[in-house]
Amino acid sequence: MSERYDIAIVGSGPAGLEAAINAKIRNKNIIIFGNKDLSSKLMKAPKINNYLGFYNITGIELKKHYEEHIKSMGIEITEERINAIYAMGDYFALMVNEKTYEAKAIILATGVEYGKPMKGEEEFLGRGVGYCATCDAPLYKDKIVTVVGYNKEAEEEANYVSELASTLYYIPMYRGEYNLSDKVIVMEDKPLEIAGDDRVNKVVLQNSDLKTDGVFILKDSISPNQLVPGLEMENEHIKVNRRMETNIKNCYAAGDCTGKPYQYMKAAGEGQIAALSAVEGM
Amino acid sequence: MSERYDIAIVGSGPAGLEAAINAKIRNKNIIIFGNKDLSSKLMKAPKINNYLGFYNITGIELKKHYEEHIKSMGIEITEERINAIYAMGDYFALMVNEKTYEAKAIILATGVEYGKPMKGEEEFLGRGVGYCATCDAPLYKDKIVTVVGYNKEAEEEANYVSELASTLYYIPMYRGEYNLSDKVIVMEDKPLEIAGDDRVNKVVLQNSDLKTDGVFILKDSISPNQLVPGLEMENEHIKVNRRMETNIKNCYAAGDCTGKPYQYMKAAGEGQIAALSAVEGM
Repeated sequence: MSERYDIAIVGSGPAGLEAAINAKIRNKNIIIFGNKDLSSKLMKAPKINNYLGFYNITGIELKKHYEEHIKSMGIEITEERINAIYAMGDYFALMVNEKTYEAKAIILATGVEYGKPMKGEEEFLGRGVGYCATCDAPLYKDKIVTVVGYNKEAEEEANYVSELASTLYYIPMYRGEYNLSDKVIVMEDKPLEIAGDDRVNKVVLQNSDLKTDGVFILKDSISPNQLVPGLEMENEHIKVNRRMETNIKNCYAAGDCTGKPYQYMKAAGEGQIAALSAVEGM
Repeated sequence: MSERYDIAIVGSGPAGLEAAINAKIRNKNIIIFGNKDLSSKLMKAPKINNYLGFYNITGIELKKHYEEHIKSMGIEITEERINAIYAMGDYFALMVNEKTYEAKAIILATGVEYGKPMKGEEEFLGRGVGYCATCDAPLYKDKIVTVVGYNKEAEEEANYVSELASTLYYIPMYRGEYNLSDKVIVMEDKPLEIAGDDRVNKVVLQNSDLKTDGVFILKDSISPNQLVPGLEMENEHIKVNRRMETNIKNCYAAGDCTGKPYQYMKAAGEGQIAALSAVEGM
């Protein structure tokens, strides 16, 4: 049985980090999922003037202060991409490919950069389109699967599914070397549309069509209600109250994913509220 | 006619300061009322670990970072105590003794340390009890007025009212030298109760009773709905939505005055939201 954490935090931007330090100060056993860059948005910020205490700072400098802060507190980022989170009653199951993490409460701090859906993506969601290849792999035994991968981590999922599928097409949405098994067929072409009748039956690429039974779109982040089934949204953001509670018990949200303004201080403030609400609810 | 600011911010803690820097970045003409210590709560904080970016920092150190930040942006604290704020339709009038400031929008960031009311204070509010001596002075021409002063600034108000009143009793709630006019009678005694029939007619002190027509209680901060008549409260806090809007148009609130958790990052995050909502509303 896997260890059950008090609080799992998804996202390592200002909201996630501020949630982590507050929960840790309250002696909670936490895990925070994200990546070493902490926040791609922060890394790209040329100059920040509105984060009280730091004037005229670059995103990279602020990131260094963040890193020092969490390091001083013994907090480490778990670099794994959560594919799905299920409310199990008195805990949550967080799915990472073949692994599962458990936590009594979760804080979603996933940001907003999940991009526009592909043509046909929403229409066929659950009818051949999915966001967690390893979760749904058993459904595609001896079938044709297409994986649209936005990052290196997607390769691991493609390899895993290729062991069951009859054919696995991998469409990389990034440049670089691919670490893929021999069974995977790489298609370096631009996907335009997911099409089908009752269910998906093909992916239309710029230069060809691929006959397929299932399509997995593996992005850096997926929209929160795809990540957490049943999560209530409001205009593309997670609906929260002033305590950062969502419609699901013990599920909190903070930062850009809860709505505008998309700002570091607002995000961090919400991360703090979410953590303290979660602690209070225990 | 006095200058009309775009945004007036009341309070110089993290919420007020973060509101100020955000409004300034958006090129708004702002004024921020507070004091040089910024926040008495902050000054007293021995160690802060949950303000993301600064680990293991004292309140005084964090205050220095705040000061450098606002100084770099040319923001200065106006050290005056707002006694009352009136919504005038398309602007707000902020009363400071004999002066009036005007602003199109206001952000209340007044904190929570306004203490318990005195016995009889709430009962006789508006019937002889007030919080702005200079505002109400004309009502007390040739009458007996008692001023309960919690700080040096109250002395100035007492002097002003003493010019009209037949008698002015001053009850200092602090130690120190008093800079009071000859007409003011200082009563170094503890006030226990404000009493009367339809209206106030006496103040009960530990060692004596004072016959009086009016009582002014001049504290560092007064409760927000006494400061802004008509402001909707919820459990002793200012009622706000997620945009930090109060029930009064163009009146926003941020920080401890909007509710728990009483934390710097939460306060700063709300200050940012309040400022950006105010800017958007212009």
